[in-house]
Amino acid sequence: MESQKTAARRGPKPNLHTRDDLLRAGVRLLHDSGYAATGVKEIVETAEVPKGSFYNHFASKEDFGKAVVDVYFAQGVGELRALLTNESMPPLVRLHTYFNERIRGYRAGGYLRGCLMGNLSLEVADHSAVIREGLATHFKAWAALFEDCIAEAQATGAIGTRLPAPLLAQFILNSWEGALLRMRAEKSDAPLYEFTEVVFRSVLA
Amino acid sequence: MESQKTAARRGPKPNLHTRDDLLRAGVRLLHDSGYAATGVKEIVETAEVPKGSFYNHFASKEDFGKAVVDVYFAQGVGELRALLTNESMPPLVRLHTYFNERIRGYRAGGYLRGCLMGNLSLEVADHSAVIREGLATHFKAWAALFEDCIAEAQATGAIGTRLPAPLLAQFILNSWEGALLRMRAEKSDAPLYEFTEVVFRSVLA
Repeated sequence: MESQKTAARRGPKPNLHTRDDLLRAGVRLLHDSGYAATGVKEIVETAEVPKGSFYNHFASKEDFGKAVVDVYFAQGVGELRALLTNESMPPLVRLHTYFNERIRGYRAGGYLRGCLMGNLSLEVADHSAVIREGLATHFKAWAALFEDCIAEAQATGAIGTRLPAPLLAQFILNSWEGALLRMRAEKSDAPLYEFTEVVFRSVLA
Repeated sequence: MESQKTAARRGPKPNLHTRDDLLRAGVRLLHDSGYAATGVKEIVETAEVPKGSFYNHFASKEDFGKAVVDVYFAQGVGELRALLTNESMPPLVRLHTYFNERIRGYRAGGYLRGCLMGNLSLEVADHSAVIREGLATHFKAWAALFEDCIAEAQATGAIGTRLPAPLLAQFILNSWEGALLRMRAEKSDAPLYEFTEVVFRSVLA
């Protein structure tokens, strides 16, 4: 504890390691408990950083929330992109594999927490333009990855072109978020399997 | 204020009018701000009831949250049932009309708040079995109304029977919740129109 106080006294120069620790704790706490239920005190304690360091790195809790969303998306998008651009599989198989892997992960986690971006969209978007705009940007990037995969399936003739790929991609992303929402209410993977069933037997068939 | 204090001194006997006032305030506050961001003090002040009356009517904030969900669903289900069982319209037209009316409402409200049941599914379901079970029960009742409408459309041959009505109903309800989630992030009705476009041109076509 004494060494932390000493570190805090060094002045306002931000320590990047501290910033990372705060963001890592933030992803975990906001995902577990939500935005309003998580206080700056708890974030600082969980990160085990000096109490005063939070405001050296973030102008406000809102500024921190935006950075947490950025980190969360950056963590997930790598795996997503790798899977969806893996040309050793046909595009629809990639997409189906992605959802099946996510379902496996949610089952292993007891159907808790869901998607932090979805959670903050419902809890915080009305109250913070900064966080809302971050969420909107990341959702667009996510949908674009689905869209590329769907457009490729259309180009190869695996699925029809009656509905445009951008529309299908947005719909599927949003429906997935809705399936995760219902998973939380049901504590069950039934909504996730209902999602893949209708998407791959009807929407993308 | 003095008369309220007098009322509070009458003792612990619950006043049903007070209970209604608390629940009405609760629906508004939880819908506007969320569960964790709304304190009992704010609920009591908004309801303009004696400070001590909250715990005469509710064992806990969680108990109150469950009752708020019940009231919210009871308010919405009447309109929903009336529309979806209106035999002057073909079943799919009823369903489409329902969504179009909801979209109109959300547009008029500036795309704020969304569905309180969806919001609490993401914010509270992991932390309260009581609220989660209330949400699950109401979602099932809601899906059953969609299912009746879809089964009727299948019986009349308006749509195919390849995918069963219960599956389609669950998928559509969850996708609608997902579209509302994205509406909040985008502050736009585009996700809602994308939902109706894909549902009525593909899933239920």
